[in-house]
Order: sequence, then structure tokens, then C-alpha cells
Amino acid sequence: MKGTNIITLLTDFGITDPYVGMMKGVILSINPDARIVDLSHNVETGSVSQAAAFLREAYHYFPTGTIHVAVVDPGVGSERKLIGMESEDQIFIGPDNGIFWPIIEVCKPTEVRQLVEEKYFLPHVTSTFHGRDIFAPIAAHLSTGVDLKKMGPRLNNPVRLSYPVPKVIRDILYGQIIRVDHFGNLITNIYRTDLERFLKSMKPTIQAGNFTINQISRTYSEMEEGEPLAIINSSDQLELAVNLGRASQYIKITSGEIIGTQVRVRK
Amino acid sequence: MKGTNIITLLTDFGITDPYVGMMKGVILSINPDARIVDLSHNVETGSVSQAAAFLREAYHYFPTGTIHVAVVDPGVGSERKLIGMESEDQIFIGPDNGIFWPIIEVCKPTEVRQLVEEKYFLPHVTSTFHGRDIFAPIAAHLSTGVDLKKMGPRLNNPVRLSYPVPKVIRDILYGQIIRVDHFGNLITNIYRTDLERFLKSMKPTIQAGNFTINQISRTYSEMEEGEPLAIINSSDQLELAVNLGRASQYIKITSGEIIGTQVRVRK
Amino acid sequence: MKGTNIITLLTDFGITDPYVGMMKGVILSINPDARIVDLSHNVETGSVSQAAAFLREAYHYFPTGTIHVAVVDPGVGSERKLIGMESEDQIFIGPDNGIFWPIIEVCKPTEVRQLVEEKYFLPHVTSTFHGRDIFAPIAAHLSTGVDLKKMGPRLNNPVRLSYPVPKVIRDILYGQIIRVDHFGNLITNIYRTDLERFLKSMKPTIQAGNFTINQISRTYSEMEEGEPLAIINSSDQLELAVNLGRASQYIKITSGEIIGTQVRVRK
Repeated sequence: MKGTNIITLLTDFGITDPYVGMMKGVILSINPDARIVDLSHNVETGSVSQAAAFLREAYHYFPTGTIHVAVVDPGVGSERKLIGMESEDQIFIGPDNGIFWPIIEVCKPTEVRQLVEEKYFLPHVTSTFHGRDIFAPIAAHLSTGVDLKKMGPRLNNPVRLSYPVPKVIRDILYGQIIRVDHFGNLITNIYRTDLERFLKSMKPTIQAGNFTINQISRTYSEMEEGEPLAIINSSDQLELAVNLGRASQYIKITSGEIIGTQVRVRK
Repeated sequence: MKGTNIITLLTDFGITDPYVGMMKGVILSINPDARIVDLSHNVETGSVSQAAAFLREAYHYFPTGTIHVAVVDPGVGSERKLIGMESEDQIFIGPDNGIFWPIIEVCKPTEVRQLVEEKYFLPHVTSTFHGRDIFAPIAAHLSTGVDLKKMGPRLNNPVRLSYPVPKVIRDILYGQIIRVDHFGNLITNIYRTDLERFLKSMKPTIQAGNFTINQISRTYSEMEEGEPLAIINSSDQLELAVNLGRASQYIKITSGEIIGTQVRVRK
Repeated sequence: MKGTNIITLLTDFGITDPYVGMMKGVILSINPDARIVDLSHNVETGSVSQAAAFLREAYHYFPTGTIHVAVVDPGVGSERKLIGMESEDQIFIGPDNGIFWPIIEVCKPTEVRQLVEEKYFLPHVTSTFHGRDIFAPIAAHLSTGVDLKKMGPRLNNPVRLSYPVPKVIRDILYGQIIRVDHFGNLITNIYRTDLERFLKSMKPTIQAGNFTINQISRTYSEMEEGEPLAIINSSDQLELAVNLGRASQYIKITSGEIIGTQVRVRK
């Protein structure tokens, strides 16, 4: 596989501390021609599943040869392994904690390796910042053309991520809200294909908290301002939204948090 | 016009979700040599006028041939048009919702086009994310040298943006606060030229909320710590500030929000 | 010294306003091949000492020839000088307010200059935005190979920054908490070398607020979830943390802010 010099970074480091900057310095010290793209550094602290979902949504928009570095790593320094993986001609580098599992599920990787070859690490590896000391230099070396196979032996059973999948019970398709985006839109774990398998027409009744929606809209602006709506979003997920408003502020749920709220789809 | 490979992005997408990252992936897939600069992704949700003001302030600091992509697009997927425009040897791409109007007003564009040529879009265009599916690929194609004229027919009446302009009534110049910046400084819609036309000397009395200021300072540090001051800022706007403090916390207004607060200038 | 085209930016400008974008436009207008890396734009407003600490932690991860621009500049437009400095084959540009003092202390600079040569500034210099009008163009010119010596005369006594250093009084090493990072970890001003000088074994008793910790852990995950721990972090600082939690939420202090809280280390 021919690399592209493009390295994406996905972390829960935030953008205030200089941690991401240090990673970029390390990368550019090894490959001054690397082209670094921030995917997000605001993943919720320690949320492997959110990082996994972000990467699953975004990776296929990047060119062949892109190297994706994902560091949401609450077990840093523990016995957890380090994984490098090739899939659809892109490379993925991160902790072996399930962060790449959704990608493994959609496209079988051609190569999965355990990253152990220390000559591709920084000379001094701390126990708390493998993003800087291991993942950044490995990504940089890969971007200069080093073969992933040289980084370590095969890794046979990468850690699975368990995440909620929609289920049909009798006449109802049950899913849940898995994310609130920047616009207050409520992203569900129900994909277009789930709906297509379940529904005869795209005119279901959708119920979540106090929202009852009787159609799937094509655009936000089809509904009146302030009205709740359901839409298949740009990542093919069922999304609950409010035209020119924040659905997250309008939805009333009986208890707990919006994330995890049950979504029921009836034919 | 010769391009520079430089593409700026201005959106209200925030920096948590992977939306901006996807746009960058699309651009780099079409033009791996594109150089992408983030102008801001924290425009207030749906605020076309704020995005318009940001771009108007910033665009002329970029080199000839820069392509500016502005996606604050509450009407995405509706009948609103897509505009591509050349002005001062820079290119502007976005929804035709007034976002480029302040630039049109200061420098007559040499070319204004409606973006309709689908071969420069992604193969699959969703109805909710034209930033990724249309604007990003168009910008990338432009950066490889495709002529804007090939993107679609002339667009004759781009949408105007109505925004507040200062007025002189009798002896008073009336303006308003249009933005609070990161430092808590209060940016007004009164420009240096408005003051120069209105005033004989730069020693006016300026009144807004509980602030009464009797001079225009040259630097913040001319005043004592905690004192309100007026200054012509680096974008030639009249700005109300507090030395080593946040004017937005000191100003008291009788009702409502700081944005829109009346500013009165007397000779 | 041979440059690398790499320019880092460290400011307290935030990422909402287009200020950082303007600086990048200015740099790219002078050197279209410049490669710009954001170190942080979320330094606390006016906190020269925080910016100084961030840069001190991060700079040595960047390649030889990197140009670091640091603009936390509450005295902009006043009589404060502008400093350019070469140290460890990297260049540092910013206001002479102590922002580079920690770097001066660890590695004697080979060259310290006062930036006065106006031909390397923008043609029009405002009194409120030297980041855009002076520092950005100077960094860009340096990145094209202009010698720092041409920017102005020697600067003999750069401004010192006073910041708290740990002290041993009788049997106790006293330090303090100087920063809360994105993870809620409490960073102290006690370095590994301070501990090594003070302790015979790495089994001290550490006390801060309601935290009493009887060992130094190697990884966060050595402790139970929710337990406070002490660790030497990836920047060789003593850090107080809570495994899978935010130490900043667990620590109880008698009064005031977490920053400045006394940390006591006993053998």
C-alpha cells in the first residue's frame, strides 16, 4: 500500500493543553512532510465508543493510504495491547480497546498487528502518554513508507467493543439515542438499512421521550420552525431533530440522560 | 486566476463532531496538495451574519487565489441556491443566503456563479450535509485549477444580507454592539470611517449601557486596570473594552442581551 | 540555522473569533510553503505564565528550525519590547514579557534580539493586534530564511517571569498545584528531579487538600477506580490524579482556588 503522508488524529485530549501539539511535533520531527488532520480532540473523556463511532463515520472520506491515529485510552500504561491494522487501504493505529471494532465489522482488515517494535517508538516511553511516545512516532514512520508488518506480530483477537444495536421485537424496532451533536440533533443507532429491512414504506411512527413523529423528512426545512422531525442523516443514521432548534432542549424524557433514551419505530 | 491550493473553512459545525474532518478528507481525496486553514467552526449556530462578519474581517489577509468555503446554512436541502464568486482574486463558495454580501458590498465581484454542475459534487449528495457533499469537493476541484465558470451559470441577484448600519440623527451617531469577542470586548458596527466622517476631532463622548467614555484610546493599557475604554480595533471598528478585564462583564444594560445594545457617539 | 517552514502558534485568542485565521493568512501570504501547527489558543486570557509553561513542555518535541510564535500579550501596544530568540536550534518570537523565561532558564539562548525592523512587519501596524501585524509576518520571513539578526539589535535583559518553585523546609518538600488539565489532573510545580534530590526512595507521603497519598504510581490504572493517586507525568511533573475520574472534582481544599493549593511531600 502506498502512503499519502496524511495522518488523522482523534483523541479525548481537548485543545487547551499542549498534548496534541506535542504529538504533531513528534510526527513532524520524523516526517517533516506529514500532513496532519484533526478529526476531533473533544471525544468525551475515556469514551472509546464515541471515538469508535466518529472514526467509523469519517474514515472512508479520506484518501487511500491515510493513517488514522485514535487515542482514547483510559487504560494507558496497563497491560492493554497496541494495535495497528490495515483495512480498505487505510491504516489504523491505537490502543487495542475496541476503538476500531466498528470498522473491523464493516470491512474485514487485511492485516492486524500488535505494535511492539520499540525502534519505532520515541527513545523514552512514559507510562501515561503513549499518544506522543508510541502512536505518533509509529504513524510518522508508517507515513514515510515503513511497512506495518515490521511493527510487530499478528494480533489474532482484537478487543471487541460492545455497543447497542437495534432490535425488532414483535412489531416494533427498538433503538436508542447514542449521541447529541453540536446542533442538538439526536443521533440514533438505527441505520437506513435497519429501517429498509423493517419497513415497507418510509412512513413509520417514531417515538422517543415526548417526541412522536409520523414521517421521515428529507430536509430539516420541510417542517415548521420548532417542530420535531425525523430524518436519515448524512451518515445514514436515523436522527431526531427540530427545524431551526435544538432537539436536545425540546425532548422530555422521564429519567436520566438523553443518551440511551429508547427510540421505538412502528410500521 | 491562478490558485494557491489554500482553502479556508468557516462553519458553525463546532469542533467536537467529525463533520469538519470529513470535509477535509473529501478535499484531500480530490486534491492531496490542498492546504486547509480553519477560519472558525464556532460561528453561532445558524448565524449567517456572524459568519459574514468574520469572513469580511479576515479574507483580505489571505493570498491571491485563496478559496474560502463558508457553510452556515440553516436552509440546507431547501430551495436556496449555491453560490460561487470571484472577488479581489479570491474565490468564495457557500450557500446563497447573504453570507458573502458584506464582501460583495466592499468589492464588486468579477464573477458570480450558481453552483449546479454535479460532476464536481460527491457522487452521492445527501440533503443535510452540503458542506461535505458539495462545497468541499467544489473547493477541491477549484484548487486543482478548474475554472469557476464551469461550475454553473451566472447568478444575477445574490441574496442580500440585511445587517444594522450606523445612523446619524441630529447630533448623535447611533450604532450598536454586534459581537462580544473571546476577550469580552464589545465590537460595534461603527467603523473608523464613520467616526471620521462624523467627528471633527477624535474626542467624542461614547455612551452604551452604563459605560460613558470620553476619549478614544490608542492602546488598552492607556487606561487603568478595570476602567472602560473605547478604541479603534485592529479591524477598524469602534470597540468598547476594559483594560485587563472583560467589558462584557462590566457593562450593565437595562434589558435583554448585550448584542444589539445601542451605542451613542456625541461630538 | 536552517529553517523547516514549521511555525507553531500559541495564543490566548480562543478559536471562535477569526483572529488566529488572520495570522495564518498573513503567514501564508509571505511564505505559501509555511506549515502552521496550533499549539494552543485556549491559554487563559492574559496568563503569560500558563503560556510559558505550555511552551516549555512542548517545544523540544519539534524539529530543529521550528519557529514558535507565542502571543499572550496583555501589554500589547504599550512600551513592552518584542523579543526574538534562538535556542537549541529553534526560534521563539513574542512579546518580551517573560513568556520565554522558562526556556531561557533551561537552555541558554545563543541569540536574543529586539524585533524592531519594520520592513518585516505588515505595512500597517495596529496598536491592538501585534500577533497579526508583527509576529506573524516576522515568523513568516524567518521561515523563508531571513536571519533573526537582521530583525533588530541585541536585547540584553529579557524580562524575567517569576513563578513558584518548590522549596524544602526542614523535612518537607513544599510545592503547589499550578494547572488543572483537560482530564481534571492536578499538575504540580514539583519535578522528578526535585523528588529525586529530596527522597531516598520513591515512597513518599504526599498531601494536598483532602488527598493523602502514600506512594507514587507508575500508571493511572494501578489504583482502583475513583482512588486518588500521585504519578510522575509525561512531562516529568508530579501530578495528582484519580483513576478514571477527575481529581479536580474530588479534591477538597479549605478555601480559594485549586491553583496554588499547597502540596506537601514527606519522606
